[in-house]
Amino acid sequence: MERRIKILGTGKYLPKRQVTAAELDSRLGLPAGWVEKKSGVSTRHYVTNETASQMGAIAAKRALETAGLSMHDIDCLVCASGTAQQEIPCTAALIQEELKLTRSGIPCFDINSTCLSFVTALDVISCSMALGIYERVLIVSTEIASVGLNWQQKESSVLFGDGAAAVVISRTTGTETSRILGSSMRTFSEGAHYSEIRGGGTMLHPSQYAKGREADFAFDMDGRKIFRLTSQKITDFVDRLLSSVSLKKDELKAVIPHQASGMAMRIIASKLSFSETQMVNILANHGNVIAASIPMALHEAIQQKRIARGDRLLMLGTSAGLSLGGIILEY
Amino acid sequence: MERRIKILGTGKYLPKRQVTAAELDSRLGLPAGWVEKKSGVSTRHYVTNETASQMGAIAAKRALETAGLSMHDIDCLVCASGTAQQEIPCTAALIQEELKLTRSGIPCFDINSTCLSFVTALDVISCSMALGIYERVLIVSTEIASVGLNWQQKESSVLFGDGAAAVVISRTTGTETSRILGSSMRTFSEGAHYSEIRGGGTMLHPSQYAKGREADFAFDMDGRKIFRLTSQKITDFVDRLLSSVSLKKDELKAVIPHQASGMAMRIIASKLSFSETQMVNILANHGNVIAASIPMALHEAIQQKRIARGDRLLMLGTSAGLSLGGIILEY
Repeated sequence: MERRIKILGTGKYLPKRQVTAAELDSRLGLPAGWVEKKSGVSTRHYVTNETASQMGAIAAKRALETAGLSMHDIDCLVCASGTAQQEIPCTAALIQEELKLTRSGIPCFDINSTCLSFVTALDVISCSMALGIYERVLIVSTEIASVGLNWQQKESSVLFGDGAAAVVISRTTGTETSRILGSSMRTFSEGAHYSEIRGGGTMLHPSQYAKGREADFAFDMDGRKIFRLTSQKITDFVDRLLSSVSLKKDELKAVIPHQASGMAMRIIASKLSFSETQMVNILANHGNVIAASIPMALHEAIQQKRIARGDRLLMLGTSAGLSLGGIILEY
Repeated sequence: MERRIKILGTGKYLPKRQVTAAELDSRLGLPAGWVEKKSGVSTRHYVTNETASQMGAIAAKRALETAGLSMHDIDCLVCASGTAQQEIPCTAALIQEELKLTRSGIPCFDINSTCLSFVTALDVISCSMALGIYERVLIVSTEIASVGLNWQQKESSVLFGDGAAAVVISRTTGTETSRILGSSMRTFSEGAHYSEIRGGGTMLHPSQYAKGREADFAFDMDGRKIFRLTSQKITDFVDRLLSSVSLKKDELKAVIPHQASGMAMRIIASKLSFSETQMVNILANHGNVIAASIPMALHEAIQQKRIARGDRLLMLGTSAGLSLGGIILEY
């Protein structure tokens, strides 16, 4: 179902502290080169004292600047992150506070499908916009992965980075052709525990944190199982999505995948026969920034002029759940 | 903006363990009658070993039964809760797993605006449905408040209960008139810290849990400040919402408010001049069940035949953020 919405501006924020693959090799007692080879990530960023809402607010300001809008032009703020700053309230309200919009009344809420949160938020909120409920929406994905990593799990811990990305969208006006062409999401909870953080919620409250239980409060991933289930599902998923909008793969100017890992990106490209020119890959100097990965890669693709108005893009990802999600849009 | 959607069925689940006001009086060393008088809650329920997804799955099955549908008739599952079962994945995927729909592919994601999560989810997803993206959606609010209470804060801790509620909605067909007439949400983050749980997310990770810091990981509420800000905003908020759909207060058959507290419900009724017949109040034997309060009160109103097809309802609430939200619909 088409929705006449347009990406007006994007912005990103990366914490100052850069963490190189070499630093992690030495921290984890691994031979030089192991981390970069395994993860495909040469540099990622970790917060020092930034909060998720501070990073999100900076990315948001930059996106608004690019869009040529002021903060008061926005009539909805959605935070689309896999991690939350605090249990209550939602992170969107904390971003509103950081933006000094405390008395604005701008509605704030969070949408969470882990790494797919941005795709889900864009999908869902574009429908509200198509019906005229909102005119200009700010979607912010802001993630601090570094506090929740399990350093015993070398393969997963070296993948992630912190950072934020924001996107301003508006209704498309006049004869402009920018629009969402179609979208799809599928969740297969047979993979619900292939990647998870068991603790921190109501099942295993922070008060249960104790020596010997650290792993329950850190990210736990079975890469092989995720790989197997994703491989089974992704070809059919993308074929159906493309056929629902009557497009062929070579009509996509760019594919903006979730930057899950070097291996995941290679699988997407090879299994789906996307060319290197189509694939937007920012993994090497960002890492996997959870839900911020897709809007950050979108931002980079626009900055690097790999995308122009009229181009067709596919945003595509997998997430804990296990979910697959995608949106095809004309930029 | 109208959306032709219909509430097909509702269901609720309450944990077996009932906790009376008298039990809390004695637990907190308070004079007999204090808890009931202060909170307006005679009995609330606390989980013993239920998880949020288990409670949500039972409520969902009951809602589907009432709707005369099977689980496979659903094409989207939204979890709309203020608390999460675990940090990753989203609770919706865990509910899908509990419903044994693990290979169904039914899309699952969470929407969170704390106590308003159900209202936000219904508002947002009804737009996707109006555009034909989903036909039949299950919205589940499932909350375990009891693990995160601060027993030093007597006024707030005695308000809450655990439980789940689920609602099945579909597109309205033929000549039926069921629809959402209008909706509104406003967030004023000047009140972002009036009710919060500071810990548990990325700002204050569970690994920071320690003796002396327990309060940072428990619910913290300044009832007086919430009262003041809400009182300032709510009359105008409701007047505008009603006027946007050209309805008068006495044309509403029922008002389904968030069951925040006895005082909050009295303020809504008196400030907004809603009659006792209009106000649906289930606080006394449920407590404040966070986002599950509104769908649970809706369920009770339908069960008690206080609402019939064609009646106009207002769902209305406040939440941490601080947000106000409301939906007016024809049942």
